[in-house]
Amino acid sequence: MSKPVLFAIYAPIVGDTTSPAFGQADAAEPFVNVMDLSVTRGDGIFETASVVDGHIQALEQHLARFVRSAALLDLPTPDAAVWAEAIRAAVAAHEPAHERFVKFIMTRGIEGTGIPTAWAYVDDAEDFTEERTAGIAVVTLSRGYRHDIAATSPWLLQGAKTLSYAVHKSVLREANRRGAQDVILTATDGYVLEGPTSSVVLRIGDRILTPSTDQGILAGTTQASVFEFFESEGLVAEYGLVTVEQLAQADAVWLVSSVRQAAPVNAIDGVALPVDFELTNRLNTALLARTE
Amino acid sequence: MSKPVLFAIYAPIVGDTTSPAFGQADAAEPFVNVMDLSVTRGDGIFETASVVDGHIQALEQHLARFVRSAALLDLPTPDAAVWAEAIRAAVAAHEPAHERFVKFIMTRGIEGTGIPTAWAYVDDAEDFTEERTAGIAVVTLSRGYRHDIAATSPWLLQGAKTLSYAVHKSVLREANRRGAQDVILTATDGYVLEGPTSSVVLRIGDRILTPSTDQGILAGTTQASVFEFFESEGLVAEYGLVTVEQLAQADAVWLVSSVRQAAPVNAIDGVALPVDFELTNRLNTALLARTE
Repeated sequence: MSKPVLFAIYAPIVGDTTSPAFGQADAAEPFVNVMDLSVTRGDGIFETASVVDGHIQALEQHLARFVRSAALLDLPTPDAAVWAEAIRAAVAAHEPAHERFVKFIMTRGIEGTGIPTAWAYVDDAEDFTEERTAGIAVVTLSRGYRHDIAATSPWLLQGAKTLSYAVHKSVLREANRRGAQDVILTATDGYVLEGPTSSVVLRIGDRILTPSTDQGILAGTTQASVFEFFESEGLVAEYGLVTVEQLAQADAVWLVSSVRQAAPVNAIDGVALPVDFELTNRLNTALLARTE
Repeated sequence: MSKPVLFAIYAPIVGDTTSPAFGQADAAEPFVNVMDLSVTRGDGIFETASVVDGHIQALEQHLARFVRSAALLDLPTPDAAVWAEAIRAAVAAHEPAHERFVKFIMTRGIEGTGIPTAWAYVDDAEDFTEERTAGIAVVTLSRGYRHDIAATSPWLLQGAKTLSYAVHKSVLREANRRGAQDVILTATDGYVLEGPTSSVVLRIGDRILTPSTDQGILAGTTQASVFEFFESEGLVAEYGLVTVEQLAQADAVWLVSSVRQAAPVNAIDGVALPVDFELTNRLNTALLARTE
C-alpha cells in the first residue's frame, strides 16, 4: 500500500485570496481541531471521486455538486477552480495506482471563527472486484421520510452531501445483521430512493430507470455515466418515481457509485435477483474507462 | 476568557487497560485525523454538561446517556468510571469560573482501525442571562418523521446523541430566517418532540408536561431536574404525548438544556406567549444550584 496524501486548502472559498491557496500536509498527523464543527456537529460537505489510471473521474460534476451542497447548508461558496487545482496536485503527489480515490471536504470551521476548514485526501481504492462481478445482496430500509421531504422540509438537508452520515453507516450495520451487504432506502409513501452511498438503477425490459432527484436524494455522478452507457446500448434511460413494487419486479438492479462503480444486486430482502454478468462487465469497463 | 482545556482519553472503553487512561493535550492544536469517522461521517457520540461553581451537573446522568448512545450506535461501551475521572481532571485543570461546560466525545475512530478516539473539552460558558430572563422566540419545524420512528426504524438513530447534527444547526438557521432564536421540532403526525439541543417543557394549569422519550427524542438530563423543581412547587409533572394544539394553548413553555438551563419561550411561530419571570427565575436558581 502506498502512503495516503493530504493537501490542506487554505483558500477554499470564492473571494479568499490566501496564498498559497493549498499545500501538502502530513496525512498521518492530526489535522482537525476538536471544536471544528465537522467533528462536533457533522457540519460540512464532502465528495469522493474515483481516480482511475490517473484520471479524476467526473471531477467537474463532483465539484458542481459540492457547490450545491454548500448552498443547501448556507456555507460559503467553494472556489471550484482552486479545488480542482488542489485536487489535481494531491493526486499527482500520490503514488500512481490503477484505482485510487480522492475525498475532499469543506467544514464550517472551528466554532465561532466562521472560517471553513478544507482539505483533499488521496488513497488507494479498495478492491471491489467481488462486488462488481458476483454482486451484492441488499435489504430495503425505510429512511423515515416521505419522498417529497426536500420540498416540504428543506431544513432537513436531504439532497445535500453532508458529513452527518452516521445513519448511512447505521443502515449498513442493519444490513449486515440481516445477512446483506448494502441497503436501498425507501420513502414512507412507498418510493425507492437511493443507497446510503450510491444511486439505484433498474432495468425493466428495455427501459433503464432511476429515482428522480427531486426526492431529497443525490444527483449521482456515476449514475449519469451509467445512463450514457445504456443509451449507447440502445436502451431508454429515464428519471422518475420508482415504487417498491417496481423494484421487486425489475429485471436487473445496480447500485452505482464513484469508487465501487456498478455493483449488480443479486438479492433484495432475501429474494434472489438474476445478475447479467456480461452486461454488468461491459458497464464497469465503460465506467472505468472514463477520463475527466 | 480563560484558556480551554483538552484531555485525551486513552482508555475510553470497558476492558481497555491503556495506562495512563487519560492525559492533557493542547486544545489549540489539531487533535483529530482527517480519516477519523467523526469527521468523515459524524459517526460518534457526545454529551455536554454544565459546570457551575466547580460542580459538574448531572454527570452520572450524562454518562448513563452516553453509554446508551454508544449502544444505539453499536459502539464499544464507554468505561464510565474512566470518563468520570478524566472529566473531573479536565475541569480541575481549567481556570475556575461561575459557569463553564465540559463537552465529551467518543468517535468510531480512524476508519479501519476500530479504535475509538475520545476526549473531554472544558471552556467558559456563554452568557445566557438574556435568554433565561427575556426568553426566546421559537418556531415549530417538522422533523419529517412520525412520532414512533424510533420503534419502527431504529437504524435512523433517533434518540441517540450523535455527532451527525448538521440538521440541528440547519433548523436554527431556518429559525433565524423567520426571526426566531430557537426551534421546537414536531412529528409529521402532529406531536411535539424536542428542541434541536433542548427538551420542551409545558405548563398547562397546574400540570407540567414533557414529551415522552419513546418518540425518538433524548431523555433530558436538565428536564429531569426541572421536574424535581416543579414537583417541589406542588405541581404534577408528567411524560406523555404532547400535541401541537396543546403547545399552542400552553400557559407557559420552556426549552431546557444543560448549559443554557431554562429558557422561557416568549413567542411560538410569531404568537406571543406570556413569560412567568418570577417562576422562571426561581427555576433557574434551582437548576444553577445543582451539585453533582
